[in-house]
Amino acid sequence: MSTNLSVTYSGTRELEVVDLPVPKREFRGKTLEHAVILKVIATNICGSDQHIYHGRFDVPKGTVLGHEITGEVVEIGRDVEMMEVGDIVSVPFNVSCGKCRNCKTLHPEICETVNEAAPIGAYGFDLGGWQGGQSQFCLVPYADFALLKFPDRDQALDRMLELTYLTDNLPTGFHGCVSAQVKPGSTVYIAGAGPVGRAAAAGARLLGAACVIIGDQNKERLKVMEKAGYETADLSSSVPLADQIDAILGIPEVDCGVDAVGYEAHGLGEFSDKEVPEAALNSILEVVRAGGAIGIPGIYVGSDPGSKHPRAKDGVLDLAIGKAWTKSLTLVTGMAPVRNYSRELMQAILWNRIDLPAVMNTEVIPIEQGPDAYAKYSAGSAKKFVIDPNGMLKK
Amino acid sequence: MSTNLSVTYSGTRELEVVDLPVPKREFRGKTLEHAVILKVIATNICGSDQHIYHGRFDVPKGTVLGHEITGEVVEIGRDVEMMEVGDIVSVPFNVSCGKCRNCKTLHPEICETVNEAAPIGAYGFDLGGWQGGQSQFCLVPYADFALLKFPDRDQALDRMLELTYLTDNLPTGFHGCVSAQVKPGSTVYIAGAGPVGRAAAAGARLLGAACVIIGDQNKERLKVMEKAGYETADLSSSVPLADQIDAILGIPEVDCGVDAVGYEAHGLGEFSDKEVPEAALNSILEVVRAGGAIGIPGIYVGSDPGSKHPRAKDGVLDLAIGKAWTKSLTLVTGMAPVRNYSRELMQAILWNRIDLPAVMNTEVIPIEQGPDAYAKYSAGSAKKFVIDPNGMLKK
Amino acid sequence: MSTNLSVTYSGTRELEVVDLPVPKREFRGKTLEHAVILKVIATNICGSDQHIYHGRFDVPKGTVLGHEITGEVVEIGRDVEMMEVGDIVSVPFNVSCGKCRNCKTLHPEICETVNEAAPIGAYGFDLGGWQGGQSQFCLVPYADFALLKFPDRDQALDRMLELTYLTDNLPTGFHGCVSAQVKPGSTVYIAGAGPVGRAAAAGARLLGAACVIIGDQNKERLKVMEKAGYETADLSSSVPLADQIDAILGIPEVDCGVDAVGYEAHGLGEFSDKEVPEAALNSILEVVRAGGAIGIPGIYVGSDPGSKHPRAKDGVLDLAIGKAWTKSLTLVTGMAPVRNYSRELMQAILWNRIDLPAVMNTEVIPIEQGPDAYAKYSAGSAKKFVIDPNGMLKK
Amino acid sequence: MSTNLSVTYSGTRELEVVDLPVPKREFRGKTLEHAVILKVIATNICGSDQHIYHGRFDVPKGTVLGHEITGEVVEIGRDVEMMEVGDIVSVPFNVSCGKCRNCKTLHPEICETVNEAAPIGAYGFDLGGWQGGQSQFCLVPYADFALLKFPDRDQALDRMLELTYLTDNLPTGFHGCVSAQVKPGSTVYIAGAGPVGRAAAAGARLLGAACVIIGDQNKERLKVMEKAGYETADLSSSVPLADQIDAILGIPEVDCGVDAVGYEAHGLGEFSDKEVPEAALNSILEVVRAGGAIGIPGIYVGSDPGSKHPRAKDGVLDLAIGKAWTKSLTLVTGMAPVRNYSRELMQAILWNRIDLPAVMNTEVIPIEQGPDAYAKYSAGSAKKFVIDPNGMLKK
Repeated sequence: MSTNLSVTYSGTRELEVVDLPVPKREFRGKTLEHAVILKVIATNICGSDQHIYHGRFDVPKGTVLGHEITGEVVEIGRDVEMMEVGDIVSVPFNVSCGKCRNCKTLHPEICETVNEAAPIGAYGFDLGGWQGGQSQFCLVPYADFALLKFPDRDQALDRMLELTYLTDNLPTGFHGCVSAQVKPGSTVYIAGAGPVGRAAAAGARLLGAACVIIGDQNKERLKVMEKAGYETADLSSSVPLADQIDAILGIPEVDCGVDAVGYEAHGLGEFSDKEVPEAALNSILEVVRAGGAIGIPGIYVGSDPGSKHPRAKDGVLDLAIGKAWTKSLTLVTGMAPVRNYSRELMQAILWNRIDLPAVMNTEVIPIEQGPDAYAKYSAGSAKKFVIDPNGMLKK
Repeated sequence: MSTNLSVTYSGTRELEVVDLPVPKREFRGKTLEHAVILKVIATNICGSDQHIYHGRFDVPKGTVLGHEITGEVVEIGRDVEMMEVGDIVSVPFNVSCGKCRNCKTLHPEICETVNEAAPIGAYGFDLGGWQGGQSQFCLVPYADFALLKFPDRDQALDRMLELTYLTDNLPTGFHGCVSAQVKPGSTVYIAGAGPVGRAAAAGARLLGAACVIIGDQNKERLKVMEKAGYETADLSSSVPLADQIDAILGIPEVDCGVDAVGYEAHGLGEFSDKEVPEAALNSILEVVRAGGAIGIPGIYVGSDPGSKHPRAKDGVLDLAIGKAWTKSLTLVTGMAPVRNYSRELMQAILWNRIDLPAVMNTEVIPIEQGPDAYAKYSAGSAKKFVIDPNGMLKK
Repeated sequence: MSTNLSVTYSGTRELEVVDLPVPKREFRGKTLEHAVILKVIATNICGSDQHIYHGRFDVPKGTVLGHEITGEVVEIGRDVEMMEVGDIVSVPFNVSCGKCRNCKTLHPEICETVNEAAPIGAYGFDLGGWQGGQSQFCLVPYADFALLKFPDRDQALDRMLELTYLTDNLPTGFHGCVSAQVKPGSTVYIAGAGPVGRAAAAGARLLGAACVIIGDQNKERLKVMEKAGYETADLSSSVPLADQIDAILGIPEVDCGVDAVGYEAHGLGEFSDKEVPEAALNSILEVVRAGGAIGIPGIYVGSDPGSKHPRAKDGVLDLAIGKAWTKSLTLVTGMAPVRNYSRELMQAILWNRIDLPAVMNTEVIPIEQGPDAYAKYSAGSAKKFVIDPNGMLKK
Repeated sequence: MSTNLSVTYSGTRELEVVDLPVPKREFRGKTLEHAVILKVIATNICGSDQHIYHGRFDVPKGTVLGHEITGEVVEIGRDVEMMEVGDIVSVPFNVSCGKCRNCKTLHPEICETVNEAAPIGAYGFDLGGWQGGQSQFCLVPYADFALLKFPDRDQALDRMLELTYLTDNLPTGFHGCVSAQVKPGSTVYIAGAGPVGRAAAAGARLLGAACVIIGDQNKERLKVMEKAGYETADLSSSVPLADQIDAILGIPEVDCGVDAVGYEAHGLGEFSDKEVPEAALNSILEVVRAGGAIGIPGIYVGSDPGSKHPRAKDGVLDLAIGKAWTKSLTLVTGMAPVRNYSRELMQAILWNRIDLPAVMNTEVIPIEQGPDAYAKYSAGSAKKFVIDPNGMLKK
C-alpha cells in the first residue's frame, strides 16, 4: 500500500509517479507551527505545469509537481487558529506569509519572505522550494492566512469538482477580468481557450460582461466554449481577429482584453503553428478599444533560455507599445493574488452563479495517469485534468 | 384627434389626462438649440411619482408628470450633433447640462445649472420646471450629453419593454447596488420590492451577487420575486429580519444593503401598517455586516411638511448611527447618476445578461389609464405600469 | 524601584498610577507565541480615553488605560518572525489578528476574533480585555501582522515625538481625510480641533488639500492651528459656520468634511456649552457641497447610557439625512484601520513631508502626571500629552 | 501692426513667425457656435512640439504650432453658456467634444469626434486639423466642456506664470503620478527632467510622496531640480540607476515610476548619447518594486518613420515585459486627460500648495523669439519657454 504517491519531475517531458514519505511540518530543518498537512482531495494539472513539462521552467529533478490543491486537514501546527483537523480547505497556488509588506497590502502573489530568490512563491515550482500537491499528502505553510476553509464538509465534497478550481484557474482567469476592468455590459476578448482562458470567460460572465469572445488556434477547445454559449474566434483562420470581432459585435474592437496565453504563445493565422512569444499580447493590444484595459494572467518570464527568440531569452518581447499608448491602454501584469478572490468566488460557486462544468470540461483521473494527462494536455486536449490521489472524488 | 395627451397633476390623488400643445424647443422664453423633441414610445409610472400623487412632493398644478421617458427624435436643435430625427433614445430622468462642475465629474444627478433652486433637476417634478414625459411628446434639453441613442431602431422597438427601464428603475437600482459595493459572491439585502427594489435585485445579480434577499411588507410583490428566483423576507412578519436572513444564509447578516424604499417607509412587524420614515434605513443598518456598505437610492428629502413626524418635516430622522459607526459602514446617498450607467446596462439587456421581464412584471396601458394606474400602484400593486402614449409598443 | 507603573481606571474622573507586575505573554490562561512584550517609549492620552474618564465608556476598574503605544521589543513569542528584541515598533490602537475575514480584507479595525462580544478590539478599553499601554511595559498580540517596525533604531528614537502619532491620531485623522476623498486641490472642513482634528488637518495637507478649515468652540485650540497656517472657524461664534466658510473661500461650502468630534459633541453658537450629540455631524452635512464625502473618525456608539438625550442612549441620533440625500453625499463611519496607513505615514514623517509638531502641540510628561493630564485635557487644553514612562524620550 | 503673429511649421527644424488673419469661429466650412476665440496670454513650448521640430511628428507645412494655451475670451459662439467675453481661461491641450462615449467617461484625451483619423485630438498637431495657439489669437471649440475658467481675472493675470502650466505640463506630469499610484509616503522615480518630468516631480510632492527622484542625462536640468529640493539620478553616469536609488533610499527600488521621456529616449550610461527608444521605459520597469505601478505620460507612437530602429518605425519596442510580469506591475499609457485635473490643480496653485516656479524655471519670450527657443530647447536647455504673444505677461 502506498504512503504518498506523487507526480515528480525527472526531466523535459519526463514525469514519474513515485511513492514518497508523507511530508512533515518541516521546511529546511525548521518545524512550521503555522503549517498544516493536507490529505489531497483534488489536484489539477495546470497550463503553467506545462511550462515545466516542456523544459521551459527549470525545476530540480525529483520536485513534486502541482500547485492546484484542495484537501482535508489531517495535521495542524500549534499556531493554527482558524481551522481544525477534518476541515476541507482550498490552497491558493501562491505561497504567502501574511506578514510582509506585500502580503499585508493584498499582494500575496509577490510575498517577500517565502522565496529567498525573489518576491514570488508557488508550490511545485522552483519558487522557494515548496513541493507541489500532485500527491496524496502535502505540506501547506501559513495556513491561517492563506487557506480558504469551506463552511460545510459534506457540501464541499459534493461540489468538489467545481470548488477545486478555486486554487488557481478560476481566480487567475477572474483576476485577468478584474484587471481588464470587466463590468456589467462590457465586451471582452480573451486570448487562449485553455483552462485559464475558459475560466476567465466564466469569470467575465460572472462580472456581468455583455459579450465574451474567446480566441484560440485549437478548434476543439473553441467547440467547448461554443457549446457553453460563448462567442469564439479561430486564431488559425486567415480572417484577421479584428474582422472576426467585427462580425460578432458590429465593431472591430472590444472594451477589455485578457491574455490567458503568455510567453509560449503561437502566432495567428499563417503563423499559428509557430511560437511567437508576443503574439497573444500584441493581438490584444490591437483589438482593445481606446480607453480599455488588459489583464495579463498568462505567464511571462524574466528569463527563458529555452526560447528560440534571442531577446525572449531575457524576457524581452517586441511589443506594440506605441499603438497601446495612443489608445490610453492600461496593462496589468502578474500572477493572480488568489487569496483575495477565494471567498467571493466560493460563494459564487455555492450559490450557483457560475457555470464551471460547462467551460472546464473536467476529466478526473487517478494519480497514476498523471504523466499521461500531461502529455495529452501538451498535445492540445480540451480537457481539464483533475487528479484524484486518494479516491475521494465523486465519479 | 389628440395633439399631445398628457398626464397632469391637479392635486393630491387627483390626476387628469389632458390634451396639450406639442412642446416647442423653448424654455422660459429661450429657444434651446441643444434640445430635441421626442415622440414618446414608453413612459412609466415610478415610485417617486407616487410621492407627488400622495401630496408629499409639491408640484404646480398642471405639471405634466413622468420622468421615465423613451422616445423617437422628431425634431432636433441646431447644436445637436450625436443624433438625428428618427433615432430612438432613452432619457435619463435627471436633467443635466454636461457643462457644470458636477456634470463634468460624473455627477449629472446634481447638475448645477438646470434648476436655479438647488443642484438637482428632473422631469415632471418641481425641480427646475421641466415638464414630464407621460405624454405623447416632450422636450428634452442637452440631448447630446444626456441621452442614450440605441444602436438599431428595429432592435430598440423590439426590446422596448426592457429598454424602457434604462430611464430610471434599472440604473437607480443598479446604482444602489454599486454604491453598496455588490460584487461577485456578495450577499445582498434590498429593502423594498417596488419597481426600484426589484430592478436592484436584477442589478445585484448582474453584478454577480451570490444571494439576493429582498424584503417588503407586500406579499404580492414578494411573490413576484420568489417566482423570479430571489430570496425574500416578509417585513410584515413578526419574525425579525435578522432571523429571516439567518434562515437563508446561516448567518444573520449580509455583505451589502440597498434602501429602495426611502422616506415613506412603513415599519416592520407589528408596525408594518404605520409610516416610520427611518424604518427601512435603520433595518439595513442593523443587518449589514461590519465593513459593509449601503446604497440609498430610495428618496429622502430635506423638507417633508406632510409627515406626521415633527423632525421628519425637516428631513431629520432618528438614525442608528452609533451602530453603523462601530461596524465601519459606508453610506452612499442620492439620486442615481443614470447617464453613467446607461450604455453598459443597455448592453446587458441587448446581450440578454439580465432578466428584467421576470422582475419588473410589466403591464402596458394606454395613456388614458394613467390616473387609474397611479391609484393601483398606490394601493400596492405588484405591477410596473408602462404607458404607451402613441400606440407604438408591442403587445 | 518600580516594575511597571501604569495608569489605571478607578471610576469616573478617578485614575491612579499603580505599580503592576510586568505582563507576560499570556492572555486568558494561554501563552501567546505570536505576541511581544514592549518596553513603552511613548504612550499618549487620546480623546477616546476621555470618554472613559468621563464615565461614558464603561471599563472594569483596574483596567490599564491607553491605546497609543510605541515601544521597544523586549521579549518575543516563538512564532514572531518579522522583528527582534531591541526593535522599535509602533502599535496600531486596533487589536487585530490578521487571520479573520475582516483583517484579511484591509479591515483590521473590525477584527472578528480579538473580542468575543463584537468585531472590534482595542487596547485599554473594554473591547476584548486587552490592557492598555499607559504603563512601562505591555503585551501586544499578533505582532507580525499588526506592528510597524521602524527601519532604524536611532532615527526612531530621534523622531519619537512625531512617530508616536502613528499609533492613532495621525492615521485616524488621515483616515477621515481619505474617507472624505480629500485630494489635491480639495477644500476641507474638519470639525474639532482636538488632537485627531489637528492631525486630520495635517493629513489633509499631506493629501494636497488646497484649503483646510478647522472648527472648534475652543479658542485656544484654534490658535494653535492658526499659528500652524490653517484656516479656522469659531463654533462658539454667532456667525453661522457656512458664513465663516464663505468668508474664507468665497462660497459657503467645502468639498470634503471630517468629523473629528463624535458623540460628545457640543452645539454651535448659542448652544456651544451644551452637549448636542449630533451637532458636529449635522453641521458637516450642511456645509459639504453636493457630491462630496464625509469621513467620520469621531466616535459614535451603539449604547451611551450616560447621555442626557433619550434616543442617544441607544446610539440613535437626529440626523439631517434628507439634506444629505439631495446632495448625493457619501458617509464613511468607523475606527481607522491604522495598520493600513502605518508605513506610508511613517515615510511621510521620516522624509519631512508633514509638520506634526506645529499642529500636535505636544507636552511630554512623566507617567505620574498621567491623571493630571487627563484632567487638563478634559478641561480643554490645547496640548497633546505624551507620557514618557521609562524616561526614554528626548526633552 | 500685426493682426495675428503665429509660429508656423515650415519643415524639420524650420519654423517661421508669420502674420495670419485672426481666426473665425469656423472649421472646415462650418461655423462653430460652441467655440470661442481667445486672445492668447501665454502659450508655451512643449517637449511634444519638439517631436514636430525634429521631423518625427509629421504636420502640414504652415500649421500653427502650440497646444499650451491660456487666453482671454474675445468672442463666443451662441451656444456657449458658461463663460463670457473677458473671462480668462485655460485650454487643455486635448481637443475634445464632451459628447462622445470617451469624453463622457472621463477620457477626453481620446475623444472620438474631433479627429476623423483616430480617437485623439490636439491643437497644433496633425490630429484633427486644429491649429495651435503659439499665436496672438486662436480658435477653441467645445468651450463649455473643455475650458477651465479662472474665478478672478486679476488673480489669474497675477498668477499667470504658474497657471499657464495647467494646459499641459502640470496635468500631464500629475497624470503620470496618479497613474503610478503615487500617494502619501510613496517613493517615486521620474525618468526625464524636461518640463513634464519636472512638473511630475511637483505633482508627486503635491500627492504627498515621501521621496521623489528624478533622472536625466542632462546635468543642467538636474541642477534645477536639486536646487528645488528633489533627489536626482544622473543617467549619463556609469553608476547604474538602481545603485543611485539605493544610495538615496537604502534600497535599490521605488514604489512608483513615471516615464516623462517617451520614444525619443536616450540610453543610459555609456549609451547616453544614443537614441534608444525603449531605454526610459525599461529602466523604470527595472527599478519599480513588485506590486508597483508606472505612469507613462511620455509619448510613444504607433508609427515613427524617422526612427533608426526598424521595429520602432512601427511603434514596436523591445520591452522587458517578463521582468514586469513577475513583479505584478501595472502600466498606464496615454495622453493626460487634462480637463479631469484642471480645476483641482488650479486650486492647488491658487492656494500655494505647489511650488511650480522652482521646478519650471520659466523664461518669458516674445513670439518673435519662438523659433530660437525651439532650438534652445532641442539643445537641452533647462528653461521652460513661455511665449507672450500679446505683451500681457508680467515681467
